[in-house]
Amino acid sequence: MKLILLGTGAGRPTLERNVTSIALQFPERRNRFWLFDAGEGTQHQLLGRKELKLSKLEAVFITHLHGDHLYGLPGLLTSRSFIEGAGKLTVYGPAGISAYLEGIFAASEVRLDYELEIVELEDERTELDAGFCRIVAMELDHRIRCLGYRIVESPRCGALDTEKLARLGLPPGPEYGLLKRGESVTLADGTTVRPGDVLADPTPGATVTILGDTAPCGNAFELGREADLLVHEATFAAGLEEKAAAYGHSTIAQACGIALKSEAKRLVVTHFSARYAKEDVRRMVEEARSIFPEVYAAHDGAEFDVRTGFINN
Amino acid sequence: MKLILLGTGAGRPTLERNVTSIALQFPERRNRFWLFDAGEGTQHQLLGRKELKLSKLEAVFITHLHGDHLYGLPGLLTSRSFIEGAGKLTVYGPAGISAYLEGIFAASEVRLDYELEIVELEDERTELDAGFCRIVAMELDHRIRCLGYRIVESPRCGALDTEKLARLGLPPGPEYGLLKRGESVTLADGTTVRPGDVLADPTPGATVTILGDTAPCGNAFELGREADLLVHEATFAAGLEEKAAAYGHSTIAQACGIALKSEAKRLVVTHFSARYAKEDVRRMVEEARSIFPEVYAAHDGAEFDVRTGFINN
Repeated sequence: MKLILLGTGAGRPTLERNVTSIALQFPERRNRFWLFDAGEGTQHQLLGRKELKLSKLEAVFITHLHGDHLYGLPGLLTSRSFIEGAGKLTVYGPAGISAYLEGIFAASEVRLDYELEIVELEDERTELDAGFCRIVAMELDHRIRCLGYRIVESPRCGALDTEKLARLGLPPGPEYGLLKRGESVTLADGTTVRPGDVLADPTPGATVTILGDTAPCGNAFELGREADLLVHEATFAAGLEEKAAAYGHSTIAQACGIALKSEAKRLVVTHFSARYAKEDVRRMVEEARSIFPEVYAAHDGAEFDVRTGFINN
Repeated sequence: MKLILLGTGAGRPTLERNVTSIALQFPERRNRFWLFDAGEGTQHQLLGRKELKLSKLEAVFITHLHGDHLYGLPGLLTSRSFIEGAGKLTVYGPAGISAYLEGIFAASEVRLDYELEIVELEDERTELDAGFCRIVAMELDHRIRCLGYRIVESPRCGALDTEKLARLGLPPGPEYGLLKRGESVTLADGTTVRPGDVLADPTPGATVTILGDTAPCGNAFELGREADLLVHEATFAAGLEEKAAAYGHSTIAQACGIALKSEAKRLVVTHFSARYAKEDVRRMVEEARSIFPEVYAAHDGAEFDVRTGFINN
């Protein structure tokens, strides 16, 4: 899984940062991708990015209904309608997302050329199964209902022990596929080869946690537990905890505290207040390393491989 | 008056053109400005433009409620709330604009820090008086109700004949201001000096017409009559009149026809379909000069002085 930060600012766009949107791309699934939030201008951020074609967008997960996470959604959905053969798309989000979109589409007379499903997540905890991964959504601590998402890839099948298979007298062929899919194979001499006999242990899938706006809270910790990559907001600099609390946000120090407590491998901080220039953010992150060494600042266009770390930062 | 084309494409943004928005700036009124339409990303187009500060935005005129003219409005209005001391702002548009904004603001819990007035224009023809100019709004011919706007500056006071004033024995002083404001002045010897005696004829104000999406129609012609600058959509190339009609749009040839018939001085064509690259548009305009020689293609960032012509194109 590859994480691409499209918008990394808070509240309103600046020349340095657009408002929030994060793409999660699946290179092994023909570059299909999901979006987490869609602030105004998200479709503009996708323009010219060949690896993020709107036709490959399968789902949008909205964390909460504040404008800087939401106002790009109607334009994104309608522009996708210009693409021939665009498949079904699902929007997940807090209650109210459906009425929001329906109101806008009614006013502007939008009829989409593809199937749009809207799923409102109303429970404190929801678990969704996407086959190749599962998604856990939980409520965070913000001024309005706000969700965080934990995406856990399914374990990958271990490698076949081809030497052992050769010794058993089973040459490469369709039986290898059966074994990888978990089925036993019977040899000509009547011997049964079980997948467990010839397959290495499965590789655990990677885990990425993408949180919406939040003050430090138990569910942020819960969702981030041992994640390969945790994306946590850091609207304010360390020391401004009181201000952060007043607005339902976190400081960078608090984000590091959550990453430390949840034993995440890496932390990407984002959603910086417009008051901070890039140089300020650089300094904030440098200081924050004393709390959590594996902390990295997001910027618009930054990419992270969820499992291995950086691609382009 | 200065016209600044912020977004000049149709339907959806491309790398070359954003969706529609046009700024009309009043350099003589301390750079206050109005916007005509606000497609998604309009606030982004304003970023870094020192001469178009959101605090100076007084009014937004929406032509119609299609997304490519409208989806940038909520973000623009909420970002303006970050500006300390931002004054009242008025949004004009077709019926439905109020419910559209109220629905979005309710869903995203927006409370603006300045006064927002929303005026729905429901008549076939509306005339508004802004003091320094008047605005005529009329219905055009599109798939949904769509308005065109004609902005007519008030005549400017003629220059004082200072030589004649000297001969009459009236030296420069507060009386000059009275005369310019249309009041008579009585001299020490009892003589009355009337404004008409010492003022040149008033200069007629400039006229700019900004039309929303439309097929060629009588009201487009009416609004454009003898305008210094007419902004008309040209979604399609000449020859695609049938396609244009099916979608309630115009070809560049039809836009030229309206400019010719209404005796506009200059025509700016905009709202080009995403199918046309810049080079295509250049060719389309070149051909269209045979119909109306003073036709110019808009591009994002192009500026026109309404009265005198180009500043930067």
